[in-house]
Amino acid sequence: MSYLLMFDLIGCGVFAISGAIIAYQQKMDGVGVVVLAAVTAIGGGTVRDLLLDVPVFWLHQPSYMYAIFMSSLIAILWINSSKKLSEKALEVADALGLALFVVMGTQKALSAGVPPLTAVIMGTITGCFGGMIRDVLANEIPLIFRKELYAACCIAGGTTYVLLIMYFSQIVSASVAFTIILLLRLIALKWQLMIPVFRYKNK
Amino acid sequence: MSYLLMFDLIGCGVFAISGAIIAYQQKMDGVGVVVLAAVTAIGGGTVRDLLLDVPVFWLHQPSYMYAIFMSSLIAILWINSSKKLSEKALEVADALGLALFVVMGTQKALSAGVPPLTAVIMGTITGCFGGMIRDVLANEIPLIFRKELYAACCIAGGTTYVLLIMYFSQIVSASVAFTIILLLRLIALKWQLMIPVFRYKNK
Amino acid sequence: MSYLLMFDLIGCGVFAISGAIIAYQQKMDGVGVVVLAAVTAIGGGTVRDLLLDVPVFWLHQPSYMYAIFMSSLIAILWINSSKKLSEKALEVADALGLALFVVMGTQKALSAGVPPLTAVIMGTITGCFGGMIRDVLANEIPLIFRKELYAACCIAGGTTYVLLIMYFSQIVSASVAFTIILLLRLIALKWQLMIPVFRYKNK
Repeated sequence: MSYLLMFDLIGCGVFAISGAIIAYQQKMDGVGVVVLAAVTAIGGGTVRDLLLDVPVFWLHQPSYMYAIFMSSLIAILWINSSKKLSEKALEVADALGLALFVVMGTQKALSAGVPPLTAVIMGTITGCFGGMIRDVLANEIPLIFRKELYAACCIAGGTTYVLLIMYFSQIVSASVAFTIILLLRLIALKWQLMIPVFRYKNK
Repeated sequence: MSYLLMFDLIGCGVFAISGAIIAYQQKMDGVGVVVLAAVTAIGGGTVRDLLLDVPVFWLHQPSYMYAIFMSSLIAILWINSSKKLSEKALEVADALGLALFVVMGTQKALSAGVPPLTAVIMGTITGCFGGMIRDVLANEIPLIFRKELYAACCIAGGTTYVLLIMYFSQIVSASVAFTIILLLRLIALKWQLMIPVFRYKNK
Repeated sequence: MSYLLMFDLIGCGVFAISGAIIAYQQKMDGVGVVVLAAVTAIGGGTVRDLLLDVPVFWLHQPSYMYAIFMSSLIAILWINSSKKLSEKALEVADALGLALFVVMGTQKALSAGVPPLTAVIMGTITGCFGGMIRDVLANEIPLIFRKELYAACCIAGGTTYVLLIMYFSQIVSASVAFTIILLLRLIALKWQLMIPVFRYKNK
């Protein structure tokens, strides 16, 4: 198994667990847990591939489904064991998955031949749309619209990548972009940063 | 008209009626009724075809739209006639449509050349995603996450099909899978079966 | 820049502003505003292009993203300036964008070779689905299901276009269809027309 696929599967697993936990909070049944886990894990990459008109990445690669199924199982066992969920650990894991997905999504878009700006958007979609669809299915306003810098980190990382790749190798560009997303996200979580744009009146 | 198309149109009609009824409960207007009916009827197959990257099935076949329009009309006339809706009849009709859609979706995926596991997922998407999008548009948490064994029946039926097709003819595999989905669904409805996975604390 | 692209960008800008305003009402952050603006502006055309299996229109044309970003900025500055929003002006602008999108969507579908009925549906999707996805993300029941004649105007305009194009030139058909959608929409807004289909009992 290539390193790239391994990283991708780890990213999927982490995202799947976050989907399974939301499903638990919404009191869904066993199938709902797996569906929500799957949508969170592969939703972003699926939308990206449809938009780029390239074959959907999990169509001929069942490993993704096994990773999602095992992650759902872990989440179910974990929650049933009544151990307290470590939100901290989950958030760090989610930040890792996000950084991974954005870099790989931006890369894939560039190699499909789209302009740099579109590639940044595709990276952001890869990172954010899975969670967005998850929230829509759970009947909530997607967190990416309100969570600390979630989408902003993706845009910053994707932009870094498309700029660096003009002068540096793929491995250097990817590593730097990955690090930037991860750091930005962890900093945003630590200090609860937000991007305010409107002066809301009190009400 | 081929038998296959006829079955497919019947499935669409049944699903369209369930969409129209939800639209009524949400007090939508005439266009909302038709849109929700259409989304319920063709949403699942549309997502499947997009993922498989084959031409969307209703694009060159207006009959689907006529079937949806007539079903919406029937639903509107029926509800306005103030006759009580027979939930029983609706549920049996829905189970028939579901069994039909799952088998045809799994078949179509296999002939598009995807692995068996992906084909089962495509069959499930064909059966469940129309209703899922309908519920999202009506601003509800999709029933498939909580309804008795809804998605589980699809998975069981699809798995049956991909296993049987290795040894038996298409007609035999399809018939057995169809029967299994229909029976499972009716049994689940009769005894209100659920798949519990979490031990929810009282609250 | 061609006239066609210019019209399209104007339509996108107008729709983007309506997305940004909804984002404001939902107290989203800066990124949420841009994402919701983008989804409203290009969602309908994106779904149309995916269904028609033609390249998604904004993939190789970054101008759309610039138009959306500038519109979001205008909306943010406008709202922050605490000037009262003129709902009238917004509604007329939205009607213009709608008429433009429906005509262009119907045209694009016909040139992709689908039957007239499918082309009308594609025109309607181009006009309505952006706003529909916007409302789903903002966790509301889409307005097109209840707003005065919104989707009905699209259907009327698209039908006009596919009928006229059989006998008249593209420019004549497009102009007449455009005018019909615009007028119908403005009339519907002025007299708050609805399409009732159900006799709802009092409750």
